[in-house]
Amino acid sequence: MKLLILSGPNLNLLGTREPEIYGSETLEDVERFLREAASSQGIELDFFQSNSEGALIDALHAARKDCAGVVFNPGAYTHTSIALRDAISAIQIPVVEVHLSNVHAREEFRKRSYLAPVCIGTISGFGTTSYRLGVDALLDYLKRRH
Amino acid sequence: MKLLILSGPNLNLLGTREPEIYGSETLEDVERFLREAASSQGIELDFFQSNSEGALIDALHAARKDCAGVVFNPGAYTHTSIALRDAISAIQIPVVEVHLSNVHAREEFRKRSYLAPVCIGTISGFGTTSYRLGVDALLDYLKRRH
Amino acid sequence: MKLLILSGPNLNLLGTREPEIYGSETLEDVERFLREAASSQGIELDFFQSNSEGALIDALHAARKDCAGVVFNPGAYTHTSIALRDAISAIQIPVVEVHLSNVHAREEFRKRSYLAPVCIGTISGFGTTSYRLGVDALLDYLKRRH
Amino acid sequence: MKLLILSGPNLNLLGTREPEIYGSETLEDVERFLREAASSQGIELDFFQSNSEGALIDALHAARKDCAGVVFNPGAYTHTSIALRDAISAIQIPVVEVHLSNVHAREEFRKRSYLAPVCIGTISGFGTTSYRLGVDALLDYLKRRH
Amino acid sequence: MKLLILSGPNLNLLGTREPEIYGSETLEDVERFLREAASSQGIELDFFQSNSEGALIDALHAARKDCAGVVFNPGAYTHTSIALRDAISAIQIPVVEVHLSNVHAREEFRKRSYLAPVCIGTISGFGTTSYRLGVDALLDYLKRRH
Amino acid sequence: MKLLILSGPNLNLLGTREPEIYGSETLEDVERFLREAASSQGIELDFFQSNSEGALIDALHAARKDCAGVVFNPGAYTHTSIALRDAISAIQIPVVEVHLSNVHAREEFRKRSYLAPVCIGTISGFGTTSYRLGVDALLDYLKRRH
Amino acid sequence: MKLLILSGPNLNLLGTREPEIYGSETLEDVERFLREAASSQGIELDFFQSNSEGALIDALHAARKDCAGVVFNPGAYTHTSIALRDAISAIQIPVVEVHLSNVHAREEFRKRSYLAPVCIGTISGFGTTSYRLGVDALLDYLKRRH
Amino acid sequence: MKLLILSGPNLNLLGTREPEIYGSETLEDVERFLREAASSQGIELDFFQSNSEGALIDALHAARKDCAGVVFNPGAYTHTSIALRDAISAIQIPVVEVHLSNVHAREEFRKRSYLAPVCIGTISGFGTTSYRLGVDALLDYLKRRH
Amino acid sequence: MKLLILSGPNLNLLGTREPEIYGSETLEDVERFLREAASSQGIELDFFQSNSEGALIDALHAARKDCAGVVFNPGAYTHTSIALRDAISAIQIPVVEVHLSNVHAREEFRKRSYLAPVCIGTISGFGTTSYRLGVDALLDYLKRRH
Amino acid sequence: MKLLILSGPNLNLLGTREPEIYGSETLEDVERFLREAASSQGIELDFFQSNSEGALIDALHAARKDCAGVVFNPGAYTHTSIALRDAISAIQIPVVEVHLSNVHAREEFRKRSYLAPVCIGTISGFGTTSYRLGVDALLDYLKRRH
Amino acid sequence: MKLLILSGPNLNLLGTREPEIYGSETLEDVERFLREAASSQGIELDFFQSNSEGALIDALHAARKDCAGVVFNPGAYTHTSIALRDAISAIQIPVVEVHLSNVHAREEFRKRSYLAPVCIGTISGFGTTSYRLGVDALLDYLKRRH
Amino acid sequence: MKLLILSGPNLNLLGTREPEIYGSETLEDVERFLREAASSQGIELDFFQSNSEGALIDALHAARKDCAGVVFNPGAYTHTSIALRDAISAIQIPVVEVHLSNVHAREEFRKRSYLAPVCIGTISGFGTTSYRLGVDALLDYLKRRH
Repeated sequence: MKLLILSGPNLNLLGTREPEIYGSETLEDVERFLREAASSQGIELDFFQSNSEGALIDALHAARKDCAGVVFNPGAYTHTSIALRDAISAIQIPVVEVHLSNVHAREEFRKRSYLAPVCIGTISGFGTTSYRLGVDALLDYLKRRH
Repeated sequence: MKLLILSGPNLNLLGTREPEIYGSETLEDVERFLREAASSQGIELDFFQSNSEGALIDALHAARKDCAGVVFNPGAYTHTSIALRDAISAIQIPVVEVHLSNVHAREEFRKRSYLAPVCIGTISGFGTTSYRLGVDALLDYLKRRH
Repeated sequence: MKLLILSGPNLNLLGTREPEIYGSETLEDVERFLREAASSQGIELDFFQSNSEGALIDALHAARKDCAGVVFNPGAYTHTSIALRDAISAIQIPVVEVHLSNVHAREEFRKRSYLAPVCIGTISGFGTTSYRLGVDALLDYLKRRH
Repeated sequence: MKLLILSGPNLNLLGTREPEIYGSETLEDVERFLREAASSQGIELDFFQSNSEGALIDALHAARKDCAGVVFNPGAYTHTSIALRDAISAIQIPVVEVHLSNVHAREEFRKRSYLAPVCIGTISGFGTTSYRLGVDALLDYLKRRH
Repeated sequence: MKLLILSGPNLNLLGTREPEIYGSETLEDVERFLREAASSQGIELDFFQSNSEGALIDALHAARKDCAGVVFNPGAYTHTSIALRDAISAIQIPVVEVHLSNVHAREEFRKRSYLAPVCIGTISGFGTTSYRLGVDALLDYLKRRH
Repeated sequence: MKLLILSGPNLNLLGTREPEIYGSETLEDVERFLREAASSQGIELDFFQSNSEGALIDALHAARKDCAGVVFNPGAYTHTSIALRDAISAIQIPVVEVHLSNVHAREEFRKRSYLAPVCIGTISGFGTTSYRLGVDALLDYLKRRH
Repeated sequence: MKLLILSGPNLNLLGTREPEIYGSETLEDVERFLREAASSQGIELDFFQSNSEGALIDALHAARKDCAGVVFNPGAYTHTSIALRDAISAIQIPVVEVHLSNVHAREEFRKRSYLAPVCIGTISGFGTTSYRLGVDALLDYLKRRH
Repeated sequence: MKLLILSGPNLNLLGTREPEIYGSETLEDVERFLREAASSQGIELDFFQSNSEGALIDALHAARKDCAGVVFNPGAYTHTSIALRDAISAIQIPVVEVHLSNVHAREEFRKRSYLAPVCIGTISGFGTTSYRLGVDALLDYLKRRH
Repeated sequence: MKLLILSGPNLNLLGTREPEIYGSETLEDVERFLREAASSQGIELDFFQSNSEGALIDALHAARKDCAGVVFNPGAYTHTSIALRDAISAIQIPVVEVHLSNVHAREEFRKRSYLAPVCIGTISGFGTTSYRLGVDALLDYLKRRH
Repeated sequence: MKLLILSGPNLNLLGTREPEIYGSETLEDVERFLREAASSQGIELDFFQSNSEGALIDALHAARKDCAGVVFNPGAYTHTSIALRDAISAIQIPVVEVHLSNVHAREEFRKRSYLAPVCIGTISGFGTTSYRLGVDALLDYLKRRH
Repeated sequence: MKLLILSGPNLNLLGTREPEIYGSETLEDVERFLREAASSQGIELDFFQSNSEGALIDALHAARKDCAGVVFNPGAYTHTSIALRDAISAIQIPVVEVHLSNVHAREEFRKRSYLAPVCIGTISGFGTTSYRLGVDALLDYLKRRH
Repeated sequence: MKLLILSGPNLNLLGTREPEIYGSETLEDVERFLREAASSQGIELDFFQSNSEGALIDALHAARKDCAGVVFNPGAYTHTSIALRDAISAIQIPVVEVHLSNVHAREEFRKRSYLAPVCIGTISGFGTTSYRLGVDALLDYLKRRH
């Protein structure tokens, strides 16, 4: 079974950008510790990050062919992209929305999520641990459904 | 005379995504039946689809050089893209906005169209027939203007 | 098969009112060219115009007995009449909403349509051609449903 | 003592329109069972239904001359008619607002009632029984006031 | 020169309805004192009152054929009728909006006027004197324009 | 068959608080006249009043074990309690919302009801008679469903 | 009897500012024709114009000592000054609000008037004639009250 | 180390209420599987459920004396209780907000969380697994902080 | 004469919770210094604090029997409780609303007070001194009224 | 130590304007009783009232040179003046906002205070006693800070 | 050629008020460095500052007689003064709006500018340099127009 | 020292699109005159334009490695892109927002800028001169900071 770990705009700067908020782990560090945990369970992980809304839509479309589900940190596109929402609805594989920071404790405009209503659930506020909890939640969901 | 038939995000999945809503015709099927009808009237059609807002803007810019008008299904960008609105205003060739589904019967946030005010008109709710009606309306408009 | 072509408030002035916006064709002209096109396909058309909301509701009620569908230009009642919305819901024959002008390019209060969500689709901005496209869309819809 | 039982737009279709929602009783059935109950108490009932806002205003005006009160199902005009509100204020006989369906469980725009603030009370959600409860409430009100 | 004095819903009750607010003069009284003043200036006046939005639209349409202008008390339709607004725009003769009561001192929903922006001006709050001031303002306007 | 007559905050003061608005009957009086009417039909009634949102939720939970339905005057919690709404949804027995005063004629914030959409219907404005009409409506509903 | 004719910000420029909108009459011209008309009826007029909100409040305070009423063109302070509203309430002599232009046909923020609810009535849209109609309306009001 | 697992209104019905949405596991089942997992890590767990806002505040206050953190499913109080928000701020031990259902996919009023901004993070949509992920996230947080 | 000093949710933590904001005085300290001041004037004080909305309503109800007025710090219930508002209206003894912190300088949602409009006045921002000023204001009010 | 007692628009009319609301004490009476109380504590008071926003700003600027704090009744400027807010922020001496009437029980637009967030606290609703409580609160604040 | 450099409320405190935000340069320093730069180009500068809205309007009126344009820092009146907007429209010489601080990074209510739409452009966020950039932009504009 | 001059969607059409609004200078012209001015001060400039939000984010990320600051004309993305806002926050070099047209004088939706709050300042309305002023402001800012 393969899962896609998808990351949106500005997450390529993780670990270098405002480390006092986001910590010093990079996206590569996340990739490493998720792979370790996953491989022990026989799960394969694909990783993709892009700053482009269109490229993220393309990645979601591609995932529906060979992935059982997606853990998606959509960054700022969470609050502005109806196109990503439609992509998630269209691919019909489960998607878990994750955020590093507690989006509810930030600006008012970060409280609206176009994506959450079409995801199976959301996890936010636990730093890079949010990714790990997201994979855990997704696997649990897939197991229950079968 | 050449027209551009432009399609936005997620429309590449047409026919495979939620067929009970959108029908089983693919974008290629649309291309085929539009070309047939058009060629009989000596009209040339260009087709382009992209999931990227920037690529759609580029396509509109290019169209003003060699197309008489555009039939545009902007998908979800309808509701979020002021940049596409500015592109339509800038190119000064007529654009018809079309939608497969009846956007007015869906979520509240789909009721705002940034593009409709700068298009000559809109057609929504008739499935792939919306494209055909769009070409018809555009040709009628071009004929009257001359 | 019979269709109702229904027109709402102020459309009796068509052709005489602000011709630079609405053109010089009258509602009688519209009737004539629609009848011509329809008769060649064996379609019968009924025409009715009223400035009264109640009379329009009565006309919709009557249509469900002997018409296969309605092409409706509700004029300004589009934006204010929930009673017409309920009438459309009640009669359970397909209704296409059409507008001469591009309502999206006008005042803010013309952006809300109480009727569009219960119609099968909408067409706006193409002058009297909107009526013709509406009949075309309705016939296409009726054909597909059978 | 005479009461007016007044019904607004689309209620002439009662029993034939969406019977799974509104039941199969017609407005005539309502008239019959209300008359039966009323006559046993020596109460006379007048019935009037119209799809026209103006005709409903006229009926309210007329009622103040010979009716002790009104049970009014204003249908969709509940949410849009300030003119009916003014008519109710003007006639100064008690009016009870009734609805067949539970308007609070429907679209957002059905939550605003221009009429309720000038009626003595409202009853909604009990099908045709709402009319019977309305007559009961009105009689109780008239009795207490004397 | 002829002017139309047009009155909307519930104004037929003037003088009998809430006299402590609206005074005891009836619409007939208004007609009498306006005619007296007008005849001395060689002005002919037509009077029409209706509770029906459609009938008021019809009256405005008719006025453009033989009246130089309209003094219009639209009552509650002021706040809800876009169809009347379109009728005023369409007839292209000057219309003055008048109100007996000071609408700004009443409920919030009476503060929005769909009609005022397409009238030449508005007068409100002076009881039946508002009609007289309206005729005066309209004549002044017609004189200046010539 | 047993019904619960449930009353929310401040209703213990009924008859002593602002009698010019709420009348001089106490909650005990209501209990007495409802019991009399009910016993004649072989209906058992339980009465409970509390000022605590939590206690009202507990009472609704308990009712689903031995009551056929609930007549609920939620007082001010109508406008603020999503927890009570969830309790009504959860217990899956019919609930009728009743109010003594005409809530629509009061402050703006009393127009929102979190509970009405999950009740079968609402009755407001008829003083203590609202309770009697509520029992009547509930019994009618239960009879029709069987 | 004395009346105050009070004019607010920017009205000192009348006749020189945007004459195509406001006409070429100056505030002095207004003063002259109002005085002429008033003197023939034995009415004395005081004139005051200021660009300062505080000075206008002072003038209203002073007026309550020796004026029977005020015709007030508050200009832009109409839409922003609660202090002027309180001044009008406090002085307890009748105030008529007048505007040269039809404020309803301008920007959205000009639709709110803090002053209208505490004035006896408003007149807007008739150029400098609005002042004359305002004096007329005020005298009529004073006569009726006595 | 001890953690509090706190559950709000209606959660006592878990497993019996709308099982097609919430599953058939009861709150006791949740307690059992969380205890098992926790005891293997030497973590002690306290469980408390109440339908009363006040009792939940009391429980949070008590927790700050002997618990290292709280996993809190506040149910409907999430959207209405500023008092619970203040309690969380006051106790200064970390709180994780969890929800069984995906609150973002439900009614509009469930999108506002008064509590999330003062919690360290939120998890919603994973059924009873949300509790397990919440404990996991809380332990991870406590470990990192030390 | 007896007064009730009533304190709402989380105020039991006063002095221990965020002392840099709320100071280090406890609710017991407040009680002590208020009693000292009051006893010298022959005033008796009752103190009650609860985290439960229902218990606060009960306390207000009880107060109307033996207290001349109430100084009430409703904490977060200020912004959410219409039930407390109704309780204050119902008891018809004067209530002064007090707050320790300057609620206007905090989150947007703390700016709405359901209670202030039915209290005689409000005092906020002066720490525990707000209670003392509240007692002072209440006594002054009671004295003036007699 | 010197304090400024500053009063805004229309307060010069105190005692003469709507005495049934504001009482019959004049601003001079307030000055007298405040001076008496203050002199006994060795406090000097400056008094200033103006109807002009600019003059009030000037007075605040001047106060920062020789006053320890300000008790400010800004009247209607409370709700409209950001310039006064900036002046209070700029002078960096403590300001207490006071109101004679309970502003929360009046029009909606009086609920917004631009000034409260930059004052140390607010007192409203206690008539001229509000000034006395304001001085008391300010002195208490100054004492605690030293 | 002469330009007016106009400064609104609280700017007289520049350099002394919150220097960590606004820097330590005073308005006199600004005047000096602007004059130096201007005189080298043969430009004359007038300087005026006032805390009074009325005085600023007067200054703008005067400027249209002898100034080619205005650089205006309207301070807080930016967000509240429609009267200043009307003054700028009326004088028909170009006005550049400047701000010392980045108004967009401050409170929500500072985001609305009544003046910007009638100015030729705006510059904000560059401290006293904003004035210099404003003069530069204005001269560039005047040069291009000739 | 190197600066990035970044331009967003549709700016590639500058000089060819609506020249009556935007002038006839192209982006190449802007590049040329900026380079000339910059080289004389020993400043190096990088130019980049893209219609793609993702490409603009990439460019900002790249700039933080070798540029001292950015002058950014984000075009329509100003009003819709939170992802660009996050990119500006992340790179921690100063960014100046510039616009050719006066965005405040255009559609309502152009008044919201997601970017301005994280830029050091904004300049809008001066045509291509806005770029030159932006470079000037940025250099001034960099100089002061050192």
